[in-house]
Amino acid sequence: MTTDAAAPAFDPCDPVAVAQALIRCPSVTPEDSGALGVLEAALTPLGFACHRLRFEQEGTAPVENLYARLGTEGPNFCFAGHTDVVPPGELKGWSIDPFSAEIHNGRLYGRGAVDMKGAIAAFVAASARHLRDHGAPKGSISLLITGDEEGVAINGTKKVLGWLKEKGEKLDACVVGEPTNPKALGDMIKIGRRGSMTAFLTVFGAQGHVAYPHLADNPLPRLARMLAAITAEPLDGGTAHFQPSNLELTTIDVGNPAHNVIPAQGKATLNIRFNDSHTPDTLLAWLRERFDAVGGAYELEHFVSGDSFLTPPGPLTELVAEAAQAVTGRRPEYSTTGGTSDARFIKDFCPVVEFGLVGQTMHKVDENTTLDDLTRLTDIYGAVLGGVFDRIG
Amino acid sequence: MTTDAAAPAFDPCDPVAVAQALIRCPSVTPEDSGALGVLEAALTPLGFACHRLRFEQEGTAPVENLYARLGTEGPNFCFAGHTDVVPPGELKGWSIDPFSAEIHNGRLYGRGAVDMKGAIAAFVAASARHLRDHGAPKGSISLLITGDEEGVAINGTKKVLGWLKEKGEKLDACVVGEPTNPKALGDMIKIGRRGSMTAFLTVFGAQGHVAYPHLADNPLPRLARMLAAITAEPLDGGTAHFQPSNLELTTIDVGNPAHNVIPAQGKATLNIRFNDSHTPDTLLAWLRERFDAVGGAYELEHFVSGDSFLTPPGPLTELVAEAAQAVTGRRPEYSTTGGTSDARFIKDFCPVVEFGLVGQTMHKVDENTTLDDLTRLTDIYGAVLGGVFDRIG
Ligand SMILES: [Zn+2]
Ligand SMILES: [Zn+2]
Repeated sequence: MTTDAAAPAFDPCDPVAVAQALIRCPSVTPEDSGALGVLEAALTPLGFACHRLRFEQEGTAPVENLYARLGTEGPNFCFAGHTDVVPPGELKGWSIDPFSAEIHNGRLYGRGAVDMKGAIAAFVAASARHLRDHGAPKGSISLLITGDEEGVAINGTKKVLGWLKEKGEKLDACVVGEPTNPKALGDMIKIGRRGSMTAFLTVFGAQGHVAYPHLADNPLPRLARMLAAITAEPLDGGTAHFQPSNLELTTIDVGNPAHNVIPAQGKATLNIRFNDSHTPDTLLAWLRERFDAVGGAYELEHFVSGDSFLTPPGPLTELVAEAAQAVTGRRPEYSTTGGTSDARFIKDFCPVVEFGLVGQTMHKVDENTTLDDLTRLTDIYGAVLGGVFDRIG
Repeated sequence: MTTDAAAPAFDPCDPVAVAQALIRCPSVTPEDSGALGVLEAALTPLGFACHRLRFEQEGTAPVENLYARLGTEGPNFCFAGHTDVVPPGELKGWSIDPFSAEIHNGRLYGRGAVDMKGAIAAFVAASARHLRDHGAPKGSISLLITGDEEGVAINGTKKVLGWLKEKGEKLDACVVGEPTNPKALGDMIKIGRRGSMTAFLTVFGAQGHVAYPHLADNPLPRLARMLAAITAEPLDGGTAHFQPSNLELTTIDVGNPAHNVIPAQGKATLNIRFNDSHTPDTLLAWLRERFDAVGGAYELEHFVSGDSFLTPPGPLTELVAEAAQAVTGRRPEYSTTGGTSDARFIKDFCPVVEFGLVGQTMHKVDENTTLDDLTRLTDIYGAVLGGVFDRIG
């Protein structure tokens, strides 16, 4: 028997084997380290047309991405995710090499096991099994995989979607494989996420000596009152599918080492995770109203790392929930809690939900998933594929 | 004519010549650079017994000090001051070399001209003239000169006073030559100073991710409320001789560079200049009352760099005020405003007031005094000496 150079050294129907091959690539953002090559090697023989997309932008590292599509007809169902991982951190905290993908007591260990190489392996295995058991789908299956989700997310999903739009490529529904389950597979489907805005407040005064305060203007009492004002009351009471928006002060910095000097300015940074009752503009107005009430000179800068989004309960959410229930026996909760994900970009193109493995060990030492969860997640994605070409389109 | 090696190259009755000799020693704290030697050379021939006192303490630079006494009987009237100066700062800002002691248009320029080598020169000249015109005083004249007033003030006046106490040496009244006049000679006598306490507040919480605030405890809203509370109302309304105590926030520092992380703690520093209605203990209680009202875990550390002090209007203050009025035609205001001075140490030994040159250029580029002010200050100190042995003792 001869071996085709492009052929994978694993069975694409086996999610554990695919996950191991992916984990063994140390693809810490922005490094690909061969991870996308593992996917290409698995998907190309199945009939997927693979497009490697390398994006770069001044001030950021170039990033490798992959868009793979099987079929040319609609509906085009998309699995989305990322092969990049966060750094392993302190190696001495790990029981095993974080990139060796060892199996112990029914668990697969390694950085990315749950966030989210395990889910990507389940994408591949579910697709391969669907082709094996049902033949070519009545539509298309695509995988949108980025290497820039854990980083600045500038050269990743956002740019791949721009490339798809330019090509006139349409997505009809999408499942992102982030680890959405807090404790057990079947716990939770994310049907939306809060938006995230970071704001930078600088309050200005006039420097001087503490013994002669009338010759100075201390900006810090105003800064304290402004920060007290914006943390004294909630931004809203929550909405139908979202918890209340939340504001956190992340830092306050003056950096004045002289105990006898009144500083000229003080800075604070805050982050707001906001629901669908707010936009960045309403948040800025809310902040300015409270800062203006305190008065004095200040500057407010901001950046938005993601608007809030929601895929209201409907065909896609039901399909995923029923697939999860059929496999796990549990009805997942619809949730919009937690941090941002690349679903914030995809929501502008098609309905999108997130469902993946159990997140307990994500970003931690000894990240791991049970092999059973990997197999069941493959079954769930398979059930989604089974249903998708009947219901969506 | 032969020259005694110890004899000064200037006339000790001439305050301008003495001031020039002092300014030409670049005695930036803690360097003496020969400044005390200039005084010894002037005072020894006049009959002063000079004691050079070098003090040091772990963690600080050794400092030279001088205690010189003429006479052995009481009352012992003391002139106190410092020969150390603050650094000249940006040399390019100066019109002349800060240590060349040049005279232009009736003004003597140089670092220390007003703070306070000019006043020390007036001490010397007034004493020399008193001896010349009236012979030995009915009591003692002493000079307590430190080289550590502009620095940490650890190896200076405080230790000289300890040395005097050990020797059983008594001071009966003291004039400190700090530049007390805001605009013109005769403006102001300092009869007390507010105390100074620096406090360090650390507020504790629990670190976490901004998207999961229920798993964290952000200490910064509490810090903001605490700082807003202590700057919302005055500490007191002032007392008979003092302006209200004043609190200034000098810095707030968290140092958290991650916009998505809730920090574990936040720190703030504040300085209180307090009058005679407060002690460090009452201040700490006032702070704790307000911090406790906000709640949560915090730590409050502090150091006191000077208690408040007051020499209530009486024989010494009247003597100096009348001398100033006799020379300038103006009645000086009694004041307790401004920063601390070494008078905070001397007040535990004898009544003390401060009166010197005009402070407008102190610590600035092109520091200078008019020659006229130098001469008139010498006359005022002379009038004080003239009156002191009649009234004090
Ligand atoms: Zn992830
Ligand atoms: Zn001074």
